[in-house]
Amino acid sequence: MVIAYLLALVETGKEHQAAEEVSKVQGVKEVIITYGTWDIVTKISTGTLNELDMVITNIRKIPLIQQTETLIGI
Amino acid sequence: MVIAYLLALVETGKEHQAAEEVSKVQGVKEVIITYGTWDIVTKISTGTLNELDMVITNIRKIPLIQQTETLIGI
Amino acid sequence: MVIAYLLALVETGKEHQAAEEVSKVQGVKEVIITYGTWDIVTKISTGTLNELDMVITNIRKIPLIQQTETLIGI
Amino acid sequence: MVIAYLLALVETGKEHQAAEEVSKVQGVKEVIITYGTWDIVTKISTGTLNELDMVITNIRKIPLIQQTETLIGI
Amino acid sequence: MVIAYLLALVETGKEHQAAEEVSKVQGVKEVIITYGTWDIVTKISTGTLNELDMVITNIRKIPLIQQTETLIGI
Amino acid sequence: MVIAYLLALVETGKEHQAAEEVSKVQGVKEVIITYGTWDIVTKISTGTLNELDMVITNIRKIPLIQQTETLIGI
Amino acid sequence: MVIAYLLALVETGKEHQAAEEVSKVQGVKEVIITYGTWDIVTKISTGTLNELDMVITNIRKIPLIQQTETLIGI
Amino acid sequence: MVIAYLLALVETGKEHQAAEEVSKVQGVKEVIITYGTWDIVTKISTGTLNELDMVITNIRKIPLIQQTETLIGI
Repeated sequence: MVIAYLLALVETGKEHQAAEEVSKVQGVKEVIITYGTWDIVTKISTGTLNELDMVITNIRKIPLIQQTETLIGI
Repeated sequence: MVIAYLLALVETGKEHQAAEEVSKVQGVKEVIITYGTWDIVTKISTGTLNELDMVITNIRKIPLIQQTETLIGI
Repeated sequence: MVIAYLLALVETGKEHQAAEEVSKVQGVKEVIITYGTWDIVTKISTGTLNELDMVITNIRKIPLIQQTETLIGI
Repeated sequence: MVIAYLLALVETGKEHQAAEEVSKVQGVKEVIITYGTWDIVTKISTGTLNELDMVITNIRKIPLIQQTETLIGI
Repeated sequence: MVIAYLLALVETGKEHQAAEEVSKVQGVKEVIITYGTWDIVTKISTGTLNELDMVITNIRKIPLIQQTETLIGI
Repeated sequence: MVIAYLLALVETGKEHQAAEEVSKVQGVKEVIITYGTWDIVTKISTGTLNELDMVITNIRKIPLIQQTETLIGI
Repeated sequence: MVIAYLLALVETGKEHQAAEEVSKVQGVKEVIITYGTWDIVTKISTGTLNELDMVITNIRKIPLIQQTETLIGI
Repeated sequence: MVIAYLLALVETGKEHQAAEEVSKVQGVKEVIITYGTWDIVTKISTGTLNELDMVITNIRKIPLIQQTETLIGI
């Protein structure tokens, strides 16, 4: 099992909408809004690195998402 | 009471206009222009974390604001 | 309730020991080791900002912890 | 008049003591503890850049202070 | 000979397409997708700093490339 | 006299054009292209902080300039 | 197979010695010295995430290594 | 000819002494103290990348220097 935290910058002023859309992506376990270095924190859990790639790609395809950094648990 | 400093990057060349618009948001106590890692520094004071969420959201809805980081005093 | 993610840099070569010590701090819900920008990610849940201050202070008092950044959910 | 915000990383676990020592430096108007990218935020007000240099140098001579970044209002 | 690693942020959701386009630029030896601080890592090898300038400029002209940082081996 | 270094990110693929335009701004003493964390480095020399504000504002009004950070010598 | 790039800060003034020691760690394929945001860049190739964990841990146990960030190819 | 800017963090409280020592290193053309993201900015000019390596190594061997980032003009 692979656990990862995806940190994201989103379109300013639309954090709540972005968090809701991210929470619907399969593999996403939790989303919180934070206004520190990053706007939202997302917890992801998948079976393999390949599946993680798909989840991250799906999140990054959401138009409100502008930049991400993923911390992969190993 | 919650005190927070919001650091912001704004549209380049419009710092003075952005600072003026931010200063009108309720809950904002002070705004200065700085050209370091961030373009403007804003001091915010609210009664609760929920109210802080509203102030930050209002600032981030200003079109000239491009990215922010909030340092929450605790 | 306040949820926060604490990102930490720890003494190099002692990540597993640091993660174990952090996991024993009251208020800490989860700890994973990651080798991205940060060495470990910690999820914290408390009732108030004051209690969050205490949890963070307790984590930061662990000698293996060298630098932290906290993302507070609001 | 020169206004500046000094952001500082301090010795982990000694934030409250560091904040108290910084607050005693002449020219320092306000100090808050924050656990975001930086541990404490300090507001400084001086008459000239030379005096700002002295205030920053005095803060940086405090042994608990490990790294700083100064945002100068202009 | 000059060896350099170019780290890049690309248009979100188009990492695989960006990596493929970068891999076609002359002087590029390897491209991998990573979702850490940067989206892709590129290894470049050229004969001189001037040629490195040309390779970097060609990569940066690809519309999907949004920001880069180059680590030059010396 | 105030000396400052302005670091800038510019529109990708147009570094040489951006550097040329920046070099024409009054108060700018030197411009070099670098592909590290920043795309160009600019040295500025002015008589006062107010004049530095004007030079930085003029550079930031150049459409190719996307983000800047200014290191003020004190 | 897992490919990763480990970026490291090393003890200042001992980059060449650090690079040599890192190059001896099993799983390390390439090491170059760079003086950008990071001092050395290391390419690692392993069969699994668990083996990657071991390689990173071994590199981080080298006393000259002070901080690392790992970009995992996925 | 190679031109580079070396940005450095120095031992807190000893910036003036560090700047003076750096200014004595052969190849260093200018040093200023700044309290932004970095403590001092150094301009270096050498004939080749190899000579630049030597200058940077000599600067990094100064005990007061704690971390550096070099922006190489190309």
